[in-house]
Amino acid sequence: MGYKADIFDVIVVGAGHAGVEAALASARMGAKTLCLTLNLDTVAYMPCNPSVGGPAKGIVVREVDALGGEMARNIDKTHIQMRMLNTGKGPAVRALRAQADKYLYQHEMKKTMENTENLTLRQGMVERLIMEDGVCKGVITKTGAEYEAKAVVLTTGTYLRGKIIIGELAYESGPNNMAPSINLSYHLQELGFDMVRFKTGTPPRVNSKTIDYSKAEIQPGDDVPRAFSYETTEYITDQLPCWLTYTGDETHQLINGNLHRSPMYSGMIEGTGPRYCPSIEDKIVRFNDKPRHQIFLEPEGRNTEEVYVQGLSTSLPEDVQKKILATIPGLEKAELMRAGYAIEYDAIVPTQLWPSLETKKVSGLFTAGQLNGTSGYEEAAGQGLMAGINAALKVKGKEPLILDRSEAYIGVLIDDLITKGTNEPYRLLTSRAEYRLLLRHDNADLRLTKKGFEIGLIPQERYERFEEKKAQIAKEIERLEHVSIKPSEEVQQVLAEAQSSALKEPMTAANLLKRPEVTYPVIQRLAPAEAPLSETVSEQVEIQVKYAGYIDKQLAQVERMRKMENKKLPVDLDYMAINGLATEAKQKLHEVRPLSVGQASRVSGVNPADISILLIYLEQGKLAKIAR
Amino acid sequence: MGYKADIFDVIVVGAGHAGVEAALASARMGAKTLCLTLNLDTVAYMPCNPSVGGPAKGIVVREVDALGGEMARNIDKTHIQMRMLNTGKGPAVRALRAQADKYLYQHEMKKTMENTENLTLRQGMVERLIMEDGVCKGVITKTGAEYEAKAVVLTTGTYLRGKIIIGELAYESGPNNMAPSINLSYHLQELGFDMVRFKTGTPPRVNSKTIDYSKAEIQPGDDVPRAFSYETTEYITDQLPCWLTYTGDETHQLINGNLHRSPMYSGMIEGTGPRYCPSIEDKIVRFNDKPRHQIFLEPEGRNTEEVYVQGLSTSLPEDVQKKILATIPGLEKAELMRAGYAIEYDAIVPTQLWPSLETKKVSGLFTAGQLNGTSGYEEAAGQGLMAGINAALKVKGKEPLILDRSEAYIGVLIDDLITKGTNEPYRLLTSRAEYRLLLRHDNADLRLTKKGFEIGLIPQERYERFEEKKAQIAKEIERLEHVSIKPSEEVQQVLAEAQSSALKEPMTAANLLKRPEVTYPVIQRLAPAEAPLSETVSEQVEIQVKYAGYIDKQLAQVERMRKMENKKLPVDLDYMAINGLATEAKQKLHEVRPLSVGQASRVSGVNPADISILLIYLEQGKLAKIAR
Repeated sequence: MGYKADIFDVIVVGAGHAGVEAALASARMGAKTLCLTLNLDTVAYMPCNPSVGGPAKGIVVREVDALGGEMARNIDKTHIQMRMLNTGKGPAVRALRAQADKYLYQHEMKKTMENTENLTLRQGMVERLIMEDGVCKGVITKTGAEYEAKAVVLTTGTYLRGKIIIGELAYESGPNNMAPSINLSYHLQELGFDMVRFKTGTPPRVNSKTIDYSKAEIQPGDDVPRAFSYETTEYITDQLPCWLTYTGDETHQLINGNLHRSPMYSGMIEGTGPRYCPSIEDKIVRFNDKPRHQIFLEPEGRNTEEVYVQGLSTSLPEDVQKKILATIPGLEKAELMRAGYAIEYDAIVPTQLWPSLETKKVSGLFTAGQLNGTSGYEEAAGQGLMAGINAALKVKGKEPLILDRSEAYIGVLIDDLITKGTNEPYRLLTSRAEYRLLLRHDNADLRLTKKGFEIGLIPQERYERFEEKKAQIAKEIERLEHVSIKPSEEVQQVLAEAQSSALKEPMTAANLLKRPEVTYPVIQRLAPAEAPLSETVSEQVEIQVKYAGYIDKQLAQVERMRKMENKKLPVDLDYMAINGLATEAKQKLHEVRPLSVGQASRVSGVNPADISILLIYLEQGKLAKIAR
Repeated sequence: MGYKADIFDVIVVGAGHAGVEAALASARMGAKTLCLTLNLDTVAYMPCNPSVGGPAKGIVVREVDALGGEMARNIDKTHIQMRMLNTGKGPAVRALRAQADKYLYQHEMKKTMENTENLTLRQGMVERLIMEDGVCKGVITKTGAEYEAKAVVLTTGTYLRGKIIIGELAYESGPNNMAPSINLSYHLQELGFDMVRFKTGTPPRVNSKTIDYSKAEIQPGDDVPRAFSYETTEYITDQLPCWLTYTGDETHQLINGNLHRSPMYSGMIEGTGPRYCPSIEDKIVRFNDKPRHQIFLEPEGRNTEEVYVQGLSTSLPEDVQKKILATIPGLEKAELMRAGYAIEYDAIVPTQLWPSLETKKVSGLFTAGQLNGTSGYEEAAGQGLMAGINAALKVKGKEPLILDRSEAYIGVLIDDLITKGTNEPYRLLTSRAEYRLLLRHDNADLRLTKKGFEIGLIPQERYERFEEKKAQIAKEIERLEHVSIKPSEEVQQVLAEAQSSALKEPMTAANLLKRPEVTYPVIQRLAPAEAPLSETVSEQVEIQVKYAGYIDKQLAQVERMRKMENKKLPVDLDYMAINGLATEAKQKLHEVRPLSVGQASRVSGVNPADISILLIYLEQGKLAKIAR
């Protein structure tokens, strides 16, 4: 019953947060792209939290934007609240977080896809790949359509052999009782992929009308306009608040008393859950000395009364969930609309991937998102974008775009996945980045716009605007480095107002700006620029000048790292034959097949001694004769 | 793993077009109501055509509104186009039809439900009923929640053992690859219900951007504001057009050449499809002399490029569907976004229902919508409303609300279903109503608002506005019957302009209005009312006066019908023991257990001779000794 359907350059399987970025990037780069999804009504669906961004994740969204992706623009158009986190802290940990109108988010993204040239969005369930001599040549759907393509990107989310688990009950299902995808998982196993079983969970939703908000603390959005995308010029001013409440003794006793009914503890769940997004039962068991846990009440949109109960992710039985809600101030009478549940799904072991996100086993096959063992919409979007870019580059016969750990959180994420693998759903954290002073929220455009332009995702006009901004920053820094500020009564007065000590001798504006308490507006008063600068430019000037010392230090580290990254390792290097290597190192390097000595050094189980041997081996071009 | 969950008065299973009306009606009547649905993101979902209304169906929507239901108000808030059909014809066949923004329609309805007092909307899959001595006492969900209630309304749509069929492929599924509901169907069979297997179908959707509209005829909305609800005062003026194109020779040859791959003809489909909503392959086989068929291109919303290809419902294989599209002017390059498919599902034989829509077999259990063998959102809404009303009335210990065939299309629909049954998905048609001059689009409020008020669904304020309107109509008709218009130069001039013959002698305004060419505005010029009347009042006055003769004739028929309807039949009448009855009549009457001689006369297989015997039997209180 199969039939030859259309021929595409790139096929993307799935239209979640990874799939939409992959498909849009590929199509925008000129590749004729097909995106297939189980149900066209769930494009860019948010089955869990109605929010985008947060620490590290928010920076990924900015990076996606700087490379020409869609998540930032889409949330800018559809949020109900936007907040900058950690404004009191240094620029490296600042991050934007938005509450989404989850329905609007979906529809806006779907509309964007429908209106993208070279992109065909179609409902269809992919069950197999078309394989020829170990190369992926397309996909076959349940309805027998055989679509040919030069590259395929799989973004199956939680659908692969999805299983909902709640209390004593488990049944095959995608999120919210949607159909799972069964056959594709078995097909990947047939092809020889190592698969793992992961799980994630979602909290209950309650009806806003039944919440007593007087018992919760209001969490309003910021009162200054904010946006994820560097290109956004229209801001949503009408924001909805979130609310904060807490679990308490009664909650904890109730959960402890029902642990025997938790599938987490009864052994029903075989999949591994996300460490940094634990269920409430997990939190209470692991942190049993904590008297209370935060619970955020987050509206799911403007046109719905459903409220997401953040912090209460659970797979306890439904009856226990209702009782838990009743113990939380403000939720005593809250009407449960959807019960929380855990969902198990198949993922592939990500060390089976090249840094391009192409699989090592099957040429032409890329994977992204939860399928690669991550959790989070942003992690999915970042990978989806890179997989879509690299699929399109491959079709064009070009080299893949690889971001290194000093360039982007996306680089950290992918390098971690493919080098270290993960034995639990992987979440980005600022602590995973060694150069986090470089990977800031504010400079994602400076880091990545040029790359986005070079691969054809950033249009000429936008690139020119970006270049102009860069030039303004450089010019202003240059100016500040040359303007000398001399001690005068007026100057001392301005410094005193800024609670900064008086000048004793002339100082360049740049050096003065390095004082922690001196901000760019202070400098502006002392040594005004010819024309006033935009806020984004002056923010950049201030950060780059003020933190120049730290930044330079990190850049020097990056230089050292780059040297190791530039020592390339041949893909077919026979590690088993390198006698000096420890057995574990041999095995791990053979499995991961790192592309550089730098990557090799991050493979778990590979020690500095092994790296020394590897370096000597490379330099001598033969086996090192050194006793260990 | 079961647990006692909450106790409600009424539980509605399903939140499609039947379920939402049932739940809203019940809650608004003060019954504590739970509405359970498989997936909260698909409340009021439109899996097939993005439209509401049309011949007969549009009048049902008005009736739903007059009784206090929601469908009319909801489509008034969310349509993209509104048209009055058959404006050139008599008032009995006029009907309103709207194109819906299918996503907005859903979200608006969900929001209304979330904000309705006494109504709990919850995600959950019902698998069994709680039964006690043949009485339904609640439901049990997949997660083990046991909800008690005094009445349960089932509205399962196409989900019961749903199976998607497309070409040679068939698989268990709800619409658009959503999960079907399997266990509840087996449970209903265990309880002894006779089930049938029906099927329905949906056409492909294509991307608007890929349609060449220059080859299609534009179908704009009306340029006067229109609304379904009598209460709507704000009108959407920004309308989107639909487009008309046609199948042709090439289409028909293609379909004929692929009939062997049609599940309809290969024997794969066991369910019976809707006669009045046939698939394109059906149309081409059954009307093989027709050179072309109409194809309407209908946008699915404002925020999507998906276009519904009305007239092309099909279960032919996906590859054939693509080829079919390419043969249709304007769709030569149309990109298929969703393939059409057939869906089979279980329904109950509706003669197992009382006129209240309560099942005869299980007290406290009501059913509505496709589960009762109908097709169409409007038919579902009408039944859902009545089932919800009667469930709430039962809880209150009150008599059910039964609409007769002269009062409402809803009455015709339910009487047909429960008396005649149906061996195919039942669709309302104007021809099914014998009193269709009474069952007009314009007078649904006059027919039903009082009933809606009496059961508590129409608020006092609205009822007072309605009473005022009724009084104005009566007063104006009274006035027209008494104003005499005398032949004068001015009068003859006005009549001449209206292309009406000159007056020879004085005539009442009412009689003059009976002339077909004389409209109410003409009468206004000849005998102006004291204060100008609203358009809805003057329209009513004109119709009631102009068609008084026909209306009176139908009212006389209704009188005769009512006499038969008022001859009640005991529920426990032993038809088998009435010797004079024909065997077929005995069996059918025993099965249907009609509540009146009128209903008995409409049971198929019951002849006038049988009715005579029944009447004599009733009068004599014993077996009639008449030879047949």
